[in-house]
Amino acid sequence: MAEEKLPTRAEDFSEWYNQLVLKAQLADYAPVRGCMIVRPYGWALWENMQGSLDRRFKATGHQNVAFPLLIPRSFIDKEKHHVEGFSPELAVVTIGGGEKLAEPLVIRPTSETIIGHMWSKWIQSYRDLPVLMNQWNSVVRWELRTKLFLRTLEFYWQEGHTAHATQEEAEIETRQMLDIYADFAINDAAIPVIAGKKSDAEKFAGADVTYSIEAMMGDGKALQSGTSHFLGQNFAQAFEVKYLDQGGQLQHCWTTSWGLSTRVIGAIIMVHGDDQGLVLPPKLAPYQVVVVPIFKKDDEKALVMDAARKLKTELVAANVRVTLDEREGQSPGWKFNDWEMRGVPVRVELGPKDVANQAAVLARRDRPGREGKVSAPLAGLPQTIDKLLAEIQQALHDKALAFRRANTHDAKTYDDLKKAVENGFAYSCWCGSSECEAKIKEETRATMRCIPMDQSLGEGSARPSGPGTCVYCGKPAPERAIFARAY
Amino acid sequence: MAEEKLPTRAEDFSEWYNQLVLKAQLADYAPVRGCMIVRPYGWALWENMQGSLDRRFKATGHQNVAFPLLIPRSFIDKEKHHVEGFSPELAVVTIGGGEKLAEPLVIRPTSETIIGHMWSKWIQSYRDLPVLMNQWNSVVRWELRTKLFLRTLEFYWQEGHTAHATQEEAEIETRQMLDIYADFAINDAAIPVIAGKKSDAEKFAGADVTYSIEAMMGDGKALQSGTSHFLGQNFAQAFEVKYLDQGGQLQHCWTTSWGLSTRVIGAIIMVHGDDQGLVLPPKLAPYQVVVVPIFKKDDEKALVMDAARKLKTELVAANVRVTLDEREGQSPGWKFNDWEMRGVPVRVELGPKDVANQAAVLARRDRPGREGKVSAPLAGLPQTIDKLLAEIQQALHDKALAFRRANTHDAKTYDDLKKAVENGFAYSCWCGSSECEAKIKEETRATMRCIPMDQSLGEGSARPSGPGTCVYCGKPAPERAIFARAY
Repeated sequence: MAEEKLPTRAEDFSEWYNQLVLKAQLADYAPVRGCMIVRPYGWALWENMQGSLDRRFKATGHQNVAFPLLIPRSFIDKEKHHVEGFSPELAVVTIGGGEKLAEPLVIRPTSETIIGHMWSKWIQSYRDLPVLMNQWNSVVRWELRTKLFLRTLEFYWQEGHTAHATQEEAEIETRQMLDIYADFAINDAAIPVIAGKKSDAEKFAGADVTYSIEAMMGDGKALQSGTSHFLGQNFAQAFEVKYLDQGGQLQHCWTTSWGLSTRVIGAIIMVHGDDQGLVLPPKLAPYQVVVVPIFKKDDEKALVMDAARKLKTELVAANVRVTLDEREGQSPGWKFNDWEMRGVPVRVELGPKDVANQAAVLARRDRPGREGKVSAPLAGLPQTIDKLLAEIQQALHDKALAFRRANTHDAKTYDDLKKAVENGFAYSCWCGSSECEAKIKEETRATMRCIPMDQSLGEGSARPSGPGTCVYCGKPAPERAIFARAY
Repeated sequence: MAEEKLPTRAEDFSEWYNQLVLKAQLADYAPVRGCMIVRPYGWALWENMQGSLDRRFKATGHQNVAFPLLIPRSFIDKEKHHVEGFSPELAVVTIGGGEKLAEPLVIRPTSETIIGHMWSKWIQSYRDLPVLMNQWNSVVRWELRTKLFLRTLEFYWQEGHTAHATQEEAEIETRQMLDIYADFAINDAAIPVIAGKKSDAEKFAGADVTYSIEAMMGDGKALQSGTSHFLGQNFAQAFEVKYLDQGGQLQHCWTTSWGLSTRVIGAIIMVHGDDQGLVLPPKLAPYQVVVVPIFKKDDEKALVMDAARKLKTELVAANVRVTLDEREGQSPGWKFNDWEMRGVPVRVELGPKDVANQAAVLARRDRPGREGKVSAPLAGLPQTIDKLLAEIQQALHDKALAFRRANTHDAKTYDDLKKAVENGFAYSCWCGSSECEAKIKEETRATMRCIPMDQSLGEGSARPSGPGTCVYCGKPAPERAIFARAY
């Protein structure tokens, strides 16, 4: 486990990531190309993310459901942009129960079509609206270049789907879910994100407008970390999702969809991780605290283990997620390294002297070495740790935000942009044309990530907010956009 | 919703079930034959079941994981009984990303094979054992005769998989999980179940021994409601899952698997439901309480709604799952019927007189009519309701147990057995031969459900416990078995 050293991030960021995912036992490669197994440590992280999001979804009136994974192939064809976007990526079932199927079925790449089909049966009247649904599942898209968590053939996510009586309501919903994703990213994943609008080239196949949250990884690249789509009446028309309004008129619904996936696990790794391994945000970490007992002689062991178990019990009672490392045959130093690599926010070191002094050493994962160590009395330790976890949570966010600010450049010229996207974000005026966007992508490998909702990037008036002139063509540009190389 | 009347259970039990599932909006038919959509009310019930089980799994050291849904076709062939059992039921993906696949992939019908494959990489030494895993997912089996929740092409379940160093440990695990299923069924689903061993004919394809919990439905038929398999070394040999023991010898692991699915939702419907609709056990019901406000005039409305909202807030604070029915344009009587049909355990009726008296009427779902109604003071109502919910939970279990007892017959002769399985369980001595089992099935449509672990069926010495003579062939029979027609 902790024996082989990771490459440093500076040496090879991509390889550091690949090896860390395996070494920390977050995930592994499946026998089918491009698929992954999420191992217990990775799934526990995902379960905490699910809990955080699900609470927010339910608090805003959404209900969970389960639509089937098999969709008739013909459904995909019904919405013209959707079929263009998803046809090349489909996994197709042609045989069932030993017989060739009359109509091929696809494994859902996303569920707008089958949900639209069912809504056309369930929704009759304005009284049935809004319909606010979400499902936790996996989807399959036949990706060619894959990377664990970031892009896999099958991935885990939630997909929310809502239907509304009016355009305005659907637009409000779309923005509400974007805000919820941003809130989750910032407050629970400790990842500062930029919420904004995607270009037509980058929007969801079938959407009128796609919004996303974009995060900067430790190598300066962008990762789209959640999307919320205003679908207009596109799917409602394709699947005849209609309702009788209060005036007795038949109207098409306005719909939305929004999704956040296990790729955010990739973001957590790449935003917070360091050369020693993972650094997990306390609110989502499978274990917030690891207690490592330290002893040499047998009488020391009895004393220390007794205190360690008592401490674990107290922490469990205080709702702290804690593990006590009782592994035999491994030194405390080896255990320190192992849990550092796995990113546990706080390590409690407990030796005979500590017990004698009724104290323990607390080591912060985010501040390696002596600097992050303090001795604290055992009395009231759960409260001390609770406070420390909150501090770490905030510190991770602040560090990531400082890094993003340091690597986001107000690129006024195209040369500025080219330089900025080498290792960060370019924040530039853009005329809005797909031609300029395509040229920039071709020439710099940077894509238009989003037009930030907050044109000051959260810094009030510190950044100019346009209008200006397009960084590529020089024509008038109403807004500024983020350009970056992206995962 | 509540407009069309259900057939009674006596008239047509099967049709009562089919219509109730739709009418209560638990599930609906999907566009693909044999697939289902689990609607919000059904999924909320499943989420509560998941929570109840997941807590038990984690308390016994199991960790959740996610293995992919796509499995190479060749994996299925590696265990000889497994391939026989599952080949006819496979859904096969032959096209991915627009191209014919070199090797076809199957959608998992269950995950022993892919898990065995990965374990062969992960497990090296006795120090890596036991491995205790579980996953919540869906699987696909190409069933021909389908019925919502009971048998669908895709169904939702959990599948636990464990690997052990010794046969004894694996056997203990298999029995532990059987006990956990029985505990869940009895204490949370209020379904008395018989835990026992399946015959060779009915066991899992690839298992040495299969145990199950069997429940009696409202029509006297059996429903297998959870299974736990001792897999011996069958999959460990097929996938070379080996470990170095403490003596340095390479050994095959001993493995288990166990599953419980959404068919238990079918059991809950068919065990507790009555002619008015669902009757849900309080521990699993999406809503434990519905508050129905009653008023005519506007000033009454203000008074009543104010009290109703206050009550809802108090119940939420007391961790009671409650909904307040604020729907406009529907009479209280209509709402009573609607929530009765949806099986909410306790209805709180709140009218102006009640508010004036600082009281509310509590109506128990399990005792329709006046008999189940009491007036209770608003002060302390959350505690009153909490107690009432516990009473209802117990009453549902006791009623189901009494029903099962009344319809379980000590069938000593084959004629007794034939009569017993018309509307219940036959509890008969059986010699253990597959021939007698097959003949009984052929002639009576009853299958050997299980050989109960507790040969007294929980009634101490009240029932004879064998040995005796086989109900079919008259040869010596070491044990008694349950025969019944089954879903």
